[in-house]
Amino acid sequence: MSEDLKKRTAETAALYFKDVEGEVPYRIWHSFDPELAKEFSLFITGSIYSREKLPHPTRQMVAVASLAALGAVEELSLHLQAALNVGVSPKELAEVIFQVGVYTGVPAMNRALVTLREVLKLKGLWPPDRG
Amino acid sequence: MSEDLKKRTAETAALYFKDVEGEVPYRIWHSFDPELAKEFSLFITGSIYSREKLPHPTRQMVAVASLAALGAVEELSLHLQAALNVGVSPKELAEVIFQVGVYTGVPAMNRALVTLREVLKLKGLWPPDRG
Amino acid sequence: MSEDLKKRTAETAALYFKDVEGEVPYRIWHSFDPELAKEFSLFITGSIYSREKLPHPTRQMVAVASLAALGAVEELSLHLQAALNVGVSPKELAEVIFQVGVYTGVPAMNRALVTLREVLKLKGLWPPDRG
Amino acid sequence: MSEDLKKRTAETAALYFKDVEGEVPYRIWHSFDPELAKEFSLFITGSIYSREKLPHPTRQMVAVASLAALGAVEELSLHLQAALNVGVSPKELAEVIFQVGVYTGVPAMNRALVTLREVLKLKGLWPPDRG
Amino acid sequence: MSEDLKKRTAETAALYFKDVEGEVPYRIWHSFDPELAKEFSLFITGSIYSREKLPHPTRQMVAVASLAALGAVEELSLHLQAALNVGVSPKELAEVIFQVGVYTGVPAMNRALVTLREVLKLKGLWPPDRG
Amino acid sequence: MSEDLKKRTAETAALYFKDVEGEVPYRIWHSFDPELAKEFSLFITGSIYSREKLPHPTRQMVAVASLAALGAVEELSLHLQAALNVGVSPKELAEVIFQVGVYTGVPAMNRALVTLREVLKLKGLWPPDRG
Repeated sequence: MSEDLKKRTAETAALYFKDVEGEVPYRIWHSFDPELAKEFSLFITGSIYSREKLPHPTRQMVAVASLAALGAVEELSLHLQAALNVGVSPKELAEVIFQVGVYTGVPAMNRALVTLREVLKLKGLWPPDRG
Repeated sequence: MSEDLKKRTAETAALYFKDVEGEVPYRIWHSFDPELAKEFSLFITGSIYSREKLPHPTRQMVAVASLAALGAVEELSLHLQAALNVGVSPKELAEVIFQVGVYTGVPAMNRALVTLREVLKLKGLWPPDRG
Repeated sequence: MSEDLKKRTAETAALYFKDVEGEVPYRIWHSFDPELAKEFSLFITGSIYSREKLPHPTRQMVAVASLAALGAVEELSLHLQAALNVGVSPKELAEVIFQVGVYTGVPAMNRALVTLREVLKLKGLWPPDRG
Repeated sequence: MSEDLKKRTAETAALYFKDVEGEVPYRIWHSFDPELAKEFSLFITGSIYSREKLPHPTRQMVAVASLAALGAVEELSLHLQAALNVGVSPKELAEVIFQVGVYTGVPAMNRALVTLREVLKLKGLWPPDRG
Repeated sequence: MSEDLKKRTAETAALYFKDVEGEVPYRIWHSFDPELAKEFSLFITGSIYSREKLPHPTRQMVAVASLAALGAVEELSLHLQAALNVGVSPKELAEVIFQVGVYTGVPAMNRALVTLREVLKLKGLWPPDRG
Repeated sequence: MSEDLKKRTAETAALYFKDVEGEVPYRIWHSFDPELAKEFSLFITGSIYSREKLPHPTRQMVAVASLAALGAVEELSLHLQAALNVGVSPKELAEVIFQVGVYTGVPAMNRALVTLREVLKLKGLWPPDRG
């Protein structure tokens, strides 16, 4: 079962964070404490993200909504990339951020839109189709 | 077109907030400034929520993720009820909140779970099927 | 000079917080540490609020804007009362909060409006003239 | 009336944000969604800022107090510039930030002072007259 | 090893949270998802709190400082009780909160002091010796 | 007594902030208002930090826990350096931050770990002994 958890963790991590730009949190955890880094990773990616209770695109929109609200731009960038990796469109991501702006106010919304623009530029998807 | 906006606003408000418990924000706005209350409502419910760019269940999970991150328990309660109204299941709502806990930490996650429990009790859906 | 600071502190405290409902922070500080309570009070009310660099009504609107943004409803209630004590009108207070809503999002704005409603009820000023 | 709103929006935007340095939020909104950008702008600048319920210098001090509390340095920079544009003095802006420090703590106060220093340097107003 | 983790988790939970008033987070997690509740508990109490890298009194002061900064009053109450359980004195707890006030501002400091007062009353330790 | 306060303030400031990299807050306060800067410094460093109610290493861990929770990276950097100056080890600082991650979520924890890595590099203490 523990082997199964490790396998699911690796698969989900590959699905989400393949080719992302930016420092993947695992690396900074590992540089301070390799054992704890492994536990964090198995817990978050394995025990949470891999549960088949929400489809991956929904999980990523949930992550984007929450990270935009928190102003956590580094992790927001990682999850915007993960969202594109699992098939969420740039337009849907912008729409999530515009909606979140109602709850967080304009400055947090702007910061998230700027982060999305950076991610789309990185992926060669800028300017977005605005139709 | 303005008539169309008003119609969509009313329809979306009815869909989301029918029979909710708690003070709907429109009422407090209206008690201070009826004109501005109308503009807020047309802007948020009409110009944002009614756009057909995200399905309503996704919009509500986005709201829940963001409001849980902000610790905004009154609005969280309203949107948990709205989420149930558009077909999101109690289990999916708990899963959104558990995932958001990774980004917000345990205290904000606990507060959101307590709010969800109150909403489920109110709706006669407590205890949840935990299978 | 220290006597002068004490005098200004007492005068400004009387001007702002006369007859307010709610626990004045000085009392909780004093119950833990009377000496530090005195220093906090001289510093905040004396060295900051008593400086003649901003008119008192402006100071109170600054306090309201900042406390509404922080969601600090207890202190917000005290400073809404202080604002009324120095001549800010209920309409101006509502307007400050509506504007702050742009930066903080709707939930923080709603919480501040609810706090203002409570203060106005307490003062016999509810419902407000909405003309 | 809608024409009137557009006119007031344009006038207020010109008054506040003439010659500001930094990305005006309208541009990032527009790059994602031109129609929604127009609605945001009419709502915020037209329906909120243009209401003649608070004098423009007070509005800008309210913005500064709230944005300093939120740590929203990009928008804080824009509104510090807008405040100078409508006649608020550098000393008054520093005083607003020092007062806000009581409610937000020292780190948020420092961040806001550093932002003010950058704005004053940009405008050739640094070092401030500290008399 | 997993048995060892379970044993340490149970011991540390007993040490910290024996006889606390308030809802222990495990119960709300468990009501939604017993399996995930167990993993959360093993991760937080077992893998973090039980590591012998910080003495228990230090761990609890770290928890108090962080939870006071976040305004998380429910968890703050639990950890103030846990701090008393492992030998931190009421005076030291007040001092931690006064210091945190420098970083968080007065409203968050006041909220934490009020929470500490409630805990001390609950434990029959109020009023504190202020010598 | 006032002389005594000045002396203690100077001694504690020297102990904590000797040779730190980054802008010490006193300088930015002083550039806006020399008189207020002195009062802030006497209040924070003199009246709070110099009280002999908590050992200096504990004070610095409290500061780190609170500043990590607030995401105040500039002040966090200063207090991580101060913590090393009074004998807290890199491992203990990492452990404080990992624990705080439980309450603040992963993004704030990551930001604090990145700040700690920068401080340790600055001091020639990177990579840490992870034994």
